[in-house]
Amino acid sequence: MLIDRVIERCAELDSHVIVGIDPVLEKLPEELVTAARNTYGDTLAAAANAFLNFGCAVIDAVDGVSCIVKPQLAYFEVFGAAGVGAYAEIVRYAKLRGFFVIADAKRGDIGATSAAYARAFLGDSSLSADFVTVNPYLGSDCVNEFVKLVDERDKGIFVLVKTSNKSSAELQDLESGGRKIYEIVGERVNNLAQTRVGKYGYSSVGAVVGATYPSELGALRGAMSSSPFLVPGYGAQGGAAGDVAAAFDAEGRGAYVNSSRGIIYAREDGLQFADAIRNAAIRTRDDIRTVKTHF
Amino acid sequence: MLIDRVIERCAELDSHVIVGIDPVLEKLPEELVTAARNTYGDTLAAAANAFLNFGCAVIDAVDGVSCIVKPQLAYFEVFGAAGVGAYAEIVRYAKLRGFFVIADAKRGDIGATSAAYARAFLGDSSLSADFVTVNPYLGSDCVNEFVKLVDERDKGIFVLVKTSNKSSAELQDLESGGRKIYEIVGERVNNLAQTRVGKYGYSSVGAVVGATYPSELGALRGAMSSSPFLVPGYGAQGGAAGDVAAAFDAEGRGAYVNSSRGIIYAREDGLQFADAIRNAAIRTRDDIRTVKTHF
Repeated sequence: MLIDRVIERCAELDSHVIVGIDPVLEKLPEELVTAARNTYGDTLAAAANAFLNFGCAVIDAVDGVSCIVKPQLAYFEVFGAAGVGAYAEIVRYAKLRGFFVIADAKRGDIGATSAAYARAFLGDSSLSADFVTVNPYLGSDCVNEFVKLVDERDKGIFVLVKTSNKSSAELQDLESGGRKIYEIVGERVNNLAQTRVGKYGYSSVGAVVGATYPSELGALRGAMSSSPFLVPGYGAQGGAAGDVAAAFDAEGRGAYVNSSRGIIYAREDGLQFADAIRNAAIRTRDDIRTVKTHF
Repeated sequence: MLIDRVIERCAELDSHVIVGIDPVLEKLPEELVTAARNTYGDTLAAAANAFLNFGCAVIDAVDGVSCIVKPQLAYFEVFGAAGVGAYAEIVRYAKLRGFFVIADAKRGDIGATSAAYARAFLGDSSLSADFVTVNPYLGSDCVNEFVKLVDERDKGIFVLVKTSNKSSAELQDLESGGRKIYEIVGERVNNLAQTRVGKYGYSSVGAVVGATYPSELGALRGAMSSSPFLVPGYGAQGGAAGDVAAAFDAEGRGAYVNSSRGIIYAREDGLQFADAIRNAAIRTRDDIRTVKTHF
């Protein structure tokens, strides 16, 4: 089962870091952008080429430090079909290099359309990753279309439960029948997970729970024992290692902590960008190790 | 203001039909698929070419009957970057032919990432449409990034309020403080709309409200007087003309009723597919006219 392989590979590396690939043209290493423009001019193809080379360089740089990358579709879609093509090539390269890939797409729609999104991100499509993030606003006939491919194709999903952003409370923290919306969504996700656990007690049906709300994170860890957590919000968004401690179980499992900008845009005087990225990934890994081993 | 132009053009045509473009390879006219395969072989490019030709044929067929098309991103993403490229070309063609375009993408993320989605679907990107659909689960720092481009670029959004699918009640109908979640979301959307109305009292900040829940639709029309409604669920999903009547205001404005499968996959013995599509669009337009003119 996918989640078992993720757990084992993360244990081998003693690393629970996800490297988020959020390419922004203005922030890319100048040499990559210049090289792309020299070949393609000031075109969408140049941007896509710079994204592709940057994404592959990030993957090479963090190899052995992390085993999970999470490209964020929004940044690729800014450059249209060419950008989406770069995303697809980065996914392909990451898989070749033995990484697990989370398509951070936050998709969700009515049943028939969710089935199409599931095919796109978990099926045979060139966009297909190992996991995709899913938005729960439309309910079970949306989420279940993704779960079908979790079952049929040994894929995984992370459903948004409690997101890391400031305004996440506006809808997610509304109370209904004495519980918050995110607790209700979390329970439903865990119900889907419970009947699909692998040998470590976790399912490939996981949840997105932000590091920026540590007490909620801890409570959800207790309530959602079968769901692995994708934990955004560490680093550039303000979450510290201590904030993510509660996401791990007593065996030090169950959480994958994402850092995007804090790793891929790390730069150090006198170092190539790839070395600075590797150093940042190592610091992140080690920072998360310290809290995880408290258990 | 965008919504004023939509209102005027719809009044000119006396048509409040949105034609949803949801291409599924197995359902396309055989001649288009065969022609594409003859040129491109059994490849992604062939699928994308068939999608593009079908999308443009649909636009030609419904010209003068409808002035709004709504391509659904999921179906294009099934074919990866090539599919997304076909989406972009269809958007371009629809604009050339004077249609308004709603990118049905249901995007939404944390602020910085929503800003990228907004750039992709409402900015300078090749994917950019007139409107995009937005998911509210992440709250205002998500939605506001789209609203910025509504203001700066004269674009529009439709935020998911009460969706047309069976399981929409699971989250959207939960009660909090005596109101349902969709009512709370609807109020927030209308608050954004109220400060941005054009000359007919409507804003380019609209809401998605399904035809399959007619009493909720009517109540929301009363509560959200500044927001135009994108109404899915008519036709193949089970909503009838009577069900959408409540979406219109006393002037017969304020609602745009989508039909996808019911129009684009209409076929008639002895007719070219384009003629059958046009006939289906005319029937849909006329069906919706009957209820609208009750006011």
